[in-house]
Amino acid sequence: MKKVVVARPGIDDAEREMIEKAAAKAGCTVDFISREDDSAECLMEAEIIYGEGKAAMKAVRESDNLRWLCASFAGVDAFCRPGVFRHESTILTNSAGAYGVSLAEHSIMLAIMMMRRLPYFYDNMKNRTWKLPVPQNSIKDSVVSLFGTGDTGRCLAKRIRSFEPAAIIGINRSGKDAGPDFDETYDFTRLAEVFPKTDLLIMSLPATKDTYHIINAETLSLLPANAYIVNVGRGNTIDGDALAAALNAGQLQGAALDVMETEPLPQESPLWDAKNILLTPHVAGNLTVPYTKRRNTEMFCEDLLHYAKGEPMEHLVDRGLGY
Amino acid sequence: MKKVVVARPGIDDAEREMIEKAAAKAGCTVDFISREDDSAECLMEAEIIYGEGKAAMKAVRESDNLRWLCASFAGVDAFCRPGVFRHESTILTNSAGAYGVSLAEHSIMLAIMMMRRLPYFYDNMKNRTWKLPVPQNSIKDSVVSLFGTGDTGRCLAKRIRSFEPAAIIGINRSGKDAGPDFDETYDFTRLAEVFPKTDLLIMSLPATKDTYHIINAETLSLLPANAYIVNVGRGNTIDGDALAAALNAGQLQGAALDVMETEPLPQESPLWDAKNILLTPHVAGNLTVPYTKRRNTEMFCEDLLHYAKGEPMEHLVDRGLGY
Repeated sequence: MKKVVVARPGIDDAEREMIEKAAAKAGCTVDFISREDDSAECLMEAEIIYGEGKAAMKAVRESDNLRWLCASFAGVDAFCRPGVFRHESTILTNSAGAYGVSLAEHSIMLAIMMMRRLPYFYDNMKNRTWKLPVPQNSIKDSVVSLFGTGDTGRCLAKRIRSFEPAAIIGINRSGKDAGPDFDETYDFTRLAEVFPKTDLLIMSLPATKDTYHIINAETLSLLPANAYIVNVGRGNTIDGDALAAALNAGQLQGAALDVMETEPLPQESPLWDAKNILLTPHVAGNLTVPYTKRRNTEMFCEDLLHYAKGEPMEHLVDRGLGY
Repeated sequence: MKKVVVARPGIDDAEREMIEKAAAKAGCTVDFISREDDSAECLMEAEIIYGEGKAAMKAVRESDNLRWLCASFAGVDAFCRPGVFRHESTILTNSAGAYGVSLAEHSIMLAIMMMRRLPYFYDNMKNRTWKLPVPQNSIKDSVVSLFGTGDTGRCLAKRIRSFEPAAIIGINRSGKDAGPDFDETYDFTRLAEVFPKTDLLIMSLPATKDTYHIINAETLSLLPANAYIVNVGRGNTIDGDALAAALNAGQLQGAALDVMETEPLPQESPLWDAKNILLTPHVAGNLTVPYTKRRNTEMFCEDLLHYAKGEPMEHLVDRGLGY
């Protein structure tokens, strides 16, 4: 019988039951282990692993039994490098589709916080100081560019549409149409056309060779001085030093980052003290949000049934592209 | 010739031109004065005043010429008391419809900030501390009750709908259907049915005798312990002492207030230090947001043309109701 091992954190009773049912349908046994359990022998016998952790990674590197790894997160760039898997034929799926809702809510909150000067008001209120209004901006009538048009970009577009922006522009690798909530879509080579008209840039890009430091001194200089940047994708898509310099020079109105190139953000990073910056510690998408947790499990179960029937997997990672 | 005096703050060149055009069409002269100009004699001669300030209020109390006052804000409860106007027949309009967009954006930001524990992460990041995720919630799959279904409630419903809540419930005075973005609508007498199923309560009520302290110890006890409250309507709809007590007792998960019964909030108020509270100093709707400013002027101009033609005014206040 095929062995499934679940090493994902935060599995609750309902999710456990969902997985057990799917495993039974797929003709598999299933073991649940803690991600921290380094001695879990069952991982080396598993045909399918859902989750992560040190011991799971050992199985990825060494096991001849592993046929499919389902990562419970979205950013699998580290798994796409040659030599990570003992067998290159091992299937890799990810859970990008579970995080779009959460990343979109977090991004919209960060964007409005910057537009409405919340850090200023929050700091004042901490000191019991009642300050008069200062200039504020609004998503209403703004041009919003969504850099990345996957699940997160689409969840963002749907929500931002309801705020009545002037336009929603998608930017993706191929420039292919990103769906009905996007007014236009551009490819990565056309940033010089998109950035100058952008009021709010929200990034949800995967980490690939094409996206590495795609926001740098040169591309930052294309954005107008009233623009805001939000990043909830991968940290290394932004050159942090260049961003800090642009913020401090007033080249941008603000930036909010949930992801950084090195995490935790090193104490010596210039980002901590950059002007008009807002930082959250990689919590835009995480398994403490009830919907994200449940959807993550559902997606694994969907693909488990596909796997058992020999059907194409829905959440397959293209290792060449890296996402 | 009919005299219009504009005493609204923040009129820019484009708005001035818009008003001058409408006044010409309506056969009126128009003077622009500073709200702070106490010696502006023209106010006593005005048939129409758009705006506010001490001198404008003197004209309201004393002038026989004033036929119409257009307030540039939404909360006109103080104007609805008997004896405020020299002539009770003076038309009173307000600008509630200009603020819904801004109040909705601010409310949604405050709600997500509470759900995602932003104050916790913000305080940590100020100390360069990178903290691991904590339990977070989401508008997705939450029951959102909108207490007040005027322009703000409708702007909220439209936007919140896109976040895929479990349900959007409207609560208004009459219980009348609030539009297609509401799943159900209840009247004020049915809070005991609505509150227990509410995850997020957003208030945008006018100040009337029916809404005074409508949130009090008794109604707070109807909300579940996981509920959040946001108030961007009028401060005296909430009994602040009761709210602080409920928060400190863990009866609620959080509250975010942009309005308080006394503003600025007195230094001795228990709200400053209440557990899981977020305060902004009455900036959810203000004339620094570009759209709000422009829409405010447009609404006055629309009604100026109605006034000149003897047509019903669009933004008429019902003094009996107080809004």
